Amino acid sequence: MESIEIPYQIWIMVIEDLAAKPKIPTIDDIFKARDLFDDSIRKTPLQRSDTFSKLIGTNVFLKLESLQMTGSFKVRGAYVKLNTLTDENRKRGVIAASAGNHAQGVAYAALRKGVSCTIVMPKNASPAKIAATRSYGAEVILRGMNYDESWVAAQDIAGRGRTIIHAFDDVQVIAGQGTIGLEILEDLNVIDEIYLPIGGGGLAAGVAIAIKSRRPDIKIIGVESKAFPAMKQSLMKGSLQKIEAGFTIADGISVKCPGEMTYEIASKYLDDIVLVEDSAIVRTMFLLMERMKLVVEPAGAASLAYLLSNGHHHTNRNIVSILSGGNVDMYLLGQVVTKGLMQMGRMLKIFIQLPDKPGALKTVVDGIAELSLNIVEVEHDRLSSNVSAGSAGVYLSLEMENESHAKRLIVFLKEKGLEFRVVS
Amino acid sequence: MESIEIPYQIWIMVIEDLAAKPKIPTIDDIFKARDLFDDSIRKTPLQRSDTFSKLIGTNVFLKLESLQMTGSFKVRGAYVKLNTLTDENRKRGVIAASAGNHAQGVAYAALRKGVSCTIVMPKNASPAKIAATRSYGAEVILRGMNYDESWVAAQDIAGRGRTIIHAFDDVQVIAGQGTIGLEILEDLNVIDEIYLPIGGGGLAAGVAIAIKSRRPDIKIIGVESKAFPAMKQSLMKGSLQKIEAGFTIADGISVKCPGEMTYEIASKYLDDIVLVEDSAIVRTMFLLMERMKLVVEPAGAASLAYLLSNGHHHTNRNIVSILSGGNVDMYLLGQVVTKGLMQMGRMLKIFIQLPDKPGALKTVVDGIAELSLNIVEVEHDRLSSNVSAGSAGVYLSLEMENESHAKRLIVFLKEKGLEFRVVS
Repeated sequence: MESIEIPYQIWIMVIEDLAAKPKIPTIDDIFKARDLFDDSIRKTPLQRSDTFSKLIGTNVFLKLESLQMTGSFKVRGAYVKLNTLTDENRKRGVIAASAGNHAQGVAYAALRKGVSCTIVMPKNASPAKIAATRSYGAEVILRGMNYDESWVAAQDIAGRGRTIIHAFDDVQVIAGQGTIGLEILEDLNVIDEIYLPIGGGGLAAGVAIAIKSRRPDIKIIGVESKAFPAMKQSLMKGSLQKIEAGFTIADGISVKCPGEMTYEIASKYLDDIVLVEDSAIVRTMFLLMERMKLVVEPAGAASLAYLLSNGHHHTNRNIVSILSGGNVDMYLLGQVVTKGLMQMGRMLKIFIQLPDKPGALKTVVDGIAELSLNIVEVEHDRLSSNVSAGSAGVYLSLEMENESHAKRLIVFLKEKGLEFRVVS
Repeated sequence: MESIEIPYQIWIMVIEDLAAKPKIPTIDDIFKARDLFDDSIRKTPLQRSDTFSKLIGTNVFLKLESLQMTGSFKVRGAYVKLNTLTDENRKRGVIAASAGNHAQGVAYAALRKGVSCTIVMPKNASPAKIAATRSYGAEVILRGMNYDESWVAAQDIAGRGRTIIHAFDDVQVIAGQGTIGLEILEDLNVIDEIYLPIGGGGLAAGVAIAIKSRRPDIKIIGVESKAFPAMKQSLMKGSLQKIEAGFTIADGISVKCPGEMTYEIASKYLDDIVLVEDSAIVRTMFLLMERMKLVVEPAGAASLAYLLSNGHHHTNRNIVSILSGGNVDMYLLGQVVTKGLMQMGRMLKIFIQLPDKPGALKTVVDGIAELSLNIVEVEHDRLSSNVSAGSAGVYLSLEMENESHAKRLIVFLKEKGLEFRVVS
């Protein structure tokens, strides 16, 4: 028998190739994942938005994954993973490290499957998220001051027998997130583009496999925070990159390094990755609350925020934006409301110097009522150095329809000969 | 031919009876209303809520009418009314007086049917609601300083040919709101009780006719604001009552006098009317945002707020609460977030007197981090009279899991021998 001689260099290439390409989930894995779903997981609505369609001049459909159980898509992957564990591993329990949605997803999935669950969270995790995770019956261990330290602690504890559930770099987890792609295809026939947020890349990977296997014509565009362009840089350089930490309010996508598997899938299937700024996210969260009556977290609003800040590029197209989650710290939400009002010229703070006499404030207040402006706060300032003697300084916070409304106020104040300045 | 002599007294009774009982819509009117719906009106989700079911110890289902087009149920009645106008009347256009959801509902329905629309709003109407009404193409006229004055102005303008669309006391409008009842019956088989908010009574009347005609076993309970118990007092006294104006944040149900028709229907079909306080509404709006990711307006949250503040009365029952709308002024929403955090012991403001030396604040901050409390605001106060010389006063606003978390902080501060007081 003759043997064929294979040059050494080719062997090396084959081995490197095998090593470089982790096994990635297939469309069949995603169908199997879908079959595992019962009433523990919601099929979330895909809703056309008149408001956003008008704003960007084309048809915008929103996939409301913020209304998913536990408030984010993460529960899909976690539920599939919990279902595919061996009985032995289920008995030993599971563990995950997370400060956010993955924590709640794993805890909820474990509760539904009757599996003991430990979640390691950093000590500075949001109290509300700790409470929510505990409410699903998980044991919460606070360890480390950031995610990386919690992850080390989780591996340490897992060593004693528990299965670690990775947040994104896992075949079953990715397959679970991919079910979102199947649902979108079920609900809408004509689709041109799908925009989705990218952190670790689990959502993007799953949805991309589901969509591109069935409908390679649909473009899939990942949206990252400008502060964390880890997947974009990795794809551009052709290998996994760990980036420097920036700052963004979109904590759900502030990931320094994508997964090996998710990187592999993204490089194969994504059509583009674009970046979005926090200010666009704040504005989008505000509009989602005001116009759609939906609370969406910063990472969840990222893909729509990109569309809004780069609008009017496409016409007569059907664009889907995945609103991936709604778990936002309520204190931050309050700030988003205030910042949103200011940013959109809907709230104005002015300082007015009034003669310190009866009736002086009344003139101003009457004029403001006549202009249909709403006074939301009045603060008197008689003491500080920038108020002349015999005068009273008043800070007025006003709510208005839009910026032109503000201009009419300024005209009115000038007509009355009042000294004033716009504070913010 | 013989004539039958009818005693005078009987004639009077018949006439009084005819005068007292306005024609009320039937279940057939509601079916016909439903048939008029196209994609202008959404069939809104009926969703079981784990969170609220757990909180009150029985199954709570939420009818998410806050996700209806225009952000409230009002559009249903308006759309039916617009559809049933004669061609002649449609050409002449419609008019309505409203500072809120009815304005947006009528404007949207008119836009969809290509009918010219004028909305009279009081001058102090929320700028955001004026903008929203205009965005549906309606002409907005600001007239009067309250609803009653706007209503007079609307009648004046309507005299020139436009049809007035009443907000609740109208057969078609009530039939439109009744479609919510049909949807609930379609989505859920076993229902024990339905709780819904009552302002003018249009929603209650429509839903009551729909439900009681098909399923008289289901109890229907109306919820009014404690500040505006107009329907409750009318039913108790056996005739329409106009009550004194109170104050409530639930502007959508702050109605001084129910309609004649809605009163008639309520007296026939409602099982009870109960009252709810603003503080319960604030707490409920907060929880709806945090746990359900839904923005619901105060009136929309009223029926759920009643259930939450009177919980654990029923077990193993299926209770439906209608979240009637989501149109809330964004400034008010910001306040609800802050008040909610305070009210639920999730935010605490403390004043600490520190030795005015380097490192003094660090001790406190380290301890707070160790307790996993989140510092959301720090204010220094070195000047005011309640700070001793050589000390610095610091106000800290802290976010925490719950009240027991706050207690641990107080223990820590005492251990450190620090002077402090809880501000709010």
